[in-house]
Amino acid sequence: MQISGAQLIGNKKSNQGSQVFHAVNPVTGDILEVDFHEATHEEVDEAVKLARSAFETYKNTSNQDRAAFLDKIADNIMALGDSLIERCQQETALPTGRLQGERGRTVNQLRLFAEVVREGSWVDARIDLAKPDRQPLPKADIRHMLRPLGPVAVFGASNFPLAFSVAGGDTASALAAGCTVVVKGHPAHPGTSELIGSAIAKAVADCGMPEGTFSMVQGMSHETGGALVGHDSITAVGFTGSFRGGKALFDLANRRHVPIPVFAEMGSTNPVFILPGAMAERGEELGKGLAGSITLGVGQFCTNPGLVFLTESDKNEHFKAALSEAINGEAGTMLTRGIRNAYEQGVSKISDKGAVETLASGAKSESELAVGSKVFYTSIDNFEKNPDLAEEVFGPSSVLVQANTKASILKAASALEGHLTATVHGTEADLEEFADLFTILEEKVGRIIVNGFPTGVEVCHSMVHGGPYPATTAPQSTSVGTNAIKRFARPVCYQSFPMHLLPTALQDPNPDSIWRMIDGSMTKRPVEEL
Amino acid sequence: MQISGAQLIGNKKSNQGSQVFHAVNPVTGDILEVDFHEATHEEVDEAVKLARSAFETYKNTSNQDRAAFLDKIADNIMALGDSLIERCQQETALPTGRLQGERGRTVNQLRLFAEVVREGSWVDARIDLAKPDRQPLPKADIRHMLRPLGPVAVFGASNFPLAFSVAGGDTASALAAGCTVVVKGHPAHPGTSELIGSAIAKAVADCGMPEGTFSMVQGMSHETGGALVGHDSITAVGFTGSFRGGKALFDLANRRHVPIPVFAEMGSTNPVFILPGAMAERGEELGKGLAGSITLGVGQFCTNPGLVFLTESDKNEHFKAALSEAINGEAGTMLTRGIRNAYEQGVSKISDKGAVETLASGAKSESELAVGSKVFYTSIDNFEKNPDLAEEVFGPSSVLVQANTKASILKAASALEGHLTATVHGTEADLEEFADLFTILEEKVGRIIVNGFPTGVEVCHSMVHGGPYPATTAPQSTSVGTNAIKRFARPVCYQSFPMHLLPTALQDPNPDSIWRMIDGSMTKRPVEEL
Repeated sequence: MQISGAQLIGNKKSNQGSQVFHAVNPVTGDILEVDFHEATHEEVDEAVKLARSAFETYKNTSNQDRAAFLDKIADNIMALGDSLIERCQQETALPTGRLQGERGRTVNQLRLFAEVVREGSWVDARIDLAKPDRQPLPKADIRHMLRPLGPVAVFGASNFPLAFSVAGGDTASALAAGCTVVVKGHPAHPGTSELIGSAIAKAVADCGMPEGTFSMVQGMSHETGGALVGHDSITAVGFTGSFRGGKALFDLANRRHVPIPVFAEMGSTNPVFILPGAMAERGEELGKGLAGSITLGVGQFCTNPGLVFLTESDKNEHFKAALSEAINGEAGTMLTRGIRNAYEQGVSKISDKGAVETLASGAKSESELAVGSKVFYTSIDNFEKNPDLAEEVFGPSSVLVQANTKASILKAASALEGHLTATVHGTEADLEEFADLFTILEEKVGRIIVNGFPTGVEVCHSMVHGGPYPATTAPQSTSVGTNAIKRFARPVCYQSFPMHLLPTALQDPNPDSIWRMIDGSMTKRPVEEL
Repeated sequence: MQISGAQLIGNKKSNQGSQVFHAVNPVTGDILEVDFHEATHEEVDEAVKLARSAFETYKNTSNQDRAAFLDKIADNIMALGDSLIERCQQETALPTGRLQGERGRTVNQLRLFAEVVREGSWVDARIDLAKPDRQPLPKADIRHMLRPLGPVAVFGASNFPLAFSVAGGDTASALAAGCTVVVKGHPAHPGTSELIGSAIAKAVADCGMPEGTFSMVQGMSHETGGALVGHDSITAVGFTGSFRGGKALFDLANRRHVPIPVFAEMGSTNPVFILPGAMAERGEELGKGLAGSITLGVGQFCTNPGLVFLTESDKNEHFKAALSEAINGEAGTMLTRGIRNAYEQGVSKISDKGAVETLASGAKSESELAVGSKVFYTSIDNFEKNPDLAEEVFGPSSVLVQANTKASILKAASALEGHLTATVHGTEADLEEFADLFTILEEKVGRIIVNGFPTGVEVCHSMVHGGPYPATTAPQSTSVGTNAIKRFARPVCYQSFPMHLLPTALQDPNPDSIWRMIDGSMTKRPVEEL
């Protein structure tokens, strides 16, 4: 498939804009082919208007048809074959194996949402039957379900060019919910975005979905994204990226004439707590494991562990030695010059602070955007005096904080802002002794991990990839896992409706065979059989 | 029970403030006893800090204990007896029968939430079991449930002094979710607020809940509410009231260092569509029914029908005559001077417009804050030229809009902003012909009613009392019905936890006997039996 550099607006390609930008190979610094056109405001408007008109039809597609469409997107992505992986590798410097794995995750995610839609119970169908004889007033027949919001704006992320980008979790869950989607592709991998976008556009045609169910605009400038979020017909926003970017969209969305929800996942420092028994028992293993989690994907994960609290100083030596040794190897090449620069500034800021020791510093390769991993070490007193040490430095770095008492650990945990994850390593006795830590952490994060590492986010029914602000702008939601679909729907209630005007999910015979709450009890049985 | 005029902060009464205000009898204009003290910022701070510390314990109360507490609040409200109804009647001018009914609704709502908590499945428990042998990577044990947010600020409404006030739906659902609550009582009925607040405070003590589980502050000024919403330890806001009030809190909450969700229900105009067959068949009945809905509670309902679209002009005479006759009776006394003044200004603004006919104008009684009901009549052309005719005038008034074609009805529906409800009256043939109308309306409102009236909001599992902005600031939620509990919780995910550290809802044996999603399937069975 040829890459054109155009916007994908419904089933046509459009390159009205005179501004162009390019993909850059992070390893060589070479400019990759083709000229990508910056979307104009007119093109954004056209894409959203098409999404709005397609929504009228798309929102009422059957569960079977929408599921088949999601499966077809997955098929079409696989059909791109090696050319997708090759282009993506050129644009991101991510290893081929990682990209193949990420492609697998992306298509599995689409297929999982297809299953959720086909099964159908996600709509939270509820039926309260009429009681015409109730005293003092009769009770009407009232039925409830989730209905799609409308056209959704999705912002691709730089660090997951497949799984959190054009056909990533936001797009998959929005389409699954019955929303149409306009994606703003991330400018760090525009060729990958166009390939994936074309696979989705082809699936729209293959499955006879209305034109405009999916569109994609590209651009380097913030204006393109601003025009999209500010458009009257956009009803929600999905975003994965930096705090600055997510917060700007959140503020913009709240200033609209009609404010809309922004589901921005903005990353975090993902604190890790290593309790004394675990440290004594398996310090070396923990050091190696942590190094692996810090350096995975050149540290470019939202769940990268950037802050590690240690409880005992006299038993840490094996841990520190193993961690340092593992870190001192080569780190790798970052995704973009901007990310590399921000990383270098972030680690300089930390190492320039007084009373912070650079425990380990990885080698750099020759490549253009190569960086070395870093591990810093400081006391809890110094950490308390320098709260910015808790701020995220996106990349393969981490700050070890030496705390010696349980009280100081609990105090530090209480002072944490919102994060995506927290991790606790402990023996059975440790976990018993530090039970209070969990009570604190459950208010601070979306996911708590015991004796594991935060990187590696399972796409499943029970995943929460989210957390209190500033990790996200929407702490009551998740951006990974099947519950992500609920971000793009809202409840609608139908009172005293004739049966044939109700959505199938709410009709007496339960033609969709879904779980429903009828008069307060969960059942799959038709109303007639109760 | 004596009314003291003090704030209820945990189990003590506090009257630090030097500013006082009074309740006023809307019928006589008389000032009612006692001096109510405006809460100081220090008192607000104390209440929130106590709520924060109580949350540590309260969030982990068992389902049984929390349910018993909610039931006890209901008991204690009933135990206030006639003195509650009498004081409330003096403060609101609402008839005794209405207040007795509203008290019934309030305690039934508390008991319904007690049932929901006792049953326990609302937490959306999800378990994905470990698969240690999965290739290429093992799958960890991951479990998910909703956990309470933290201390919640609740703003009482003027128009439901019991059911949407101190022990109303927001307080009941927040306490049910496991959140502690600080209420800002509505200054129009401070004595009622204190009586109810004391009943809740007594239930806290009766049930051995931690002090600070509930507090209440009072005040006329916006500053008290602002201090509450701006407090670092407040995690969410429940509000029912005017657009201006709700929007101000929404903006304030979004400007915080840590933005928090605001569930503001701000009312709406609740459009009604009367289709031609229904008009021909039962115009007179519809006129009478609509008049009842417009004037119910002196029109002081969020779901009051303020906008009525008519489709046929030549068959409307019976309808218009019946409506006018019913409206021309006495309306009643409004809740406060502010509401009365806003109503008089609102109806003047409409009647002063060109091409708007005053179809009916009800008589006023002698009482201080009495108003007459109003029905206006205009053409759809004029309505389109004057979009402010669609704005809510809180009180017993409604604007009839004469449209003659289906196309003009659909166009008007498409142009609607967000509302709580929409109502369609039609014969079977009408509903068939106007099927497109429902497709439009489901994007505009939280609840659609066929052949009924929007006033009268059933408290049940399937109710949606909510809707797109500007009806609410949180279109993905409801403020009435059992789903309201979900506003005050967020998902937390537990990865690889030892069984005894998990909340009971997620433990293998399912000790709470709740519905759970295990590996994607709904079941109440323990994990061991799968």
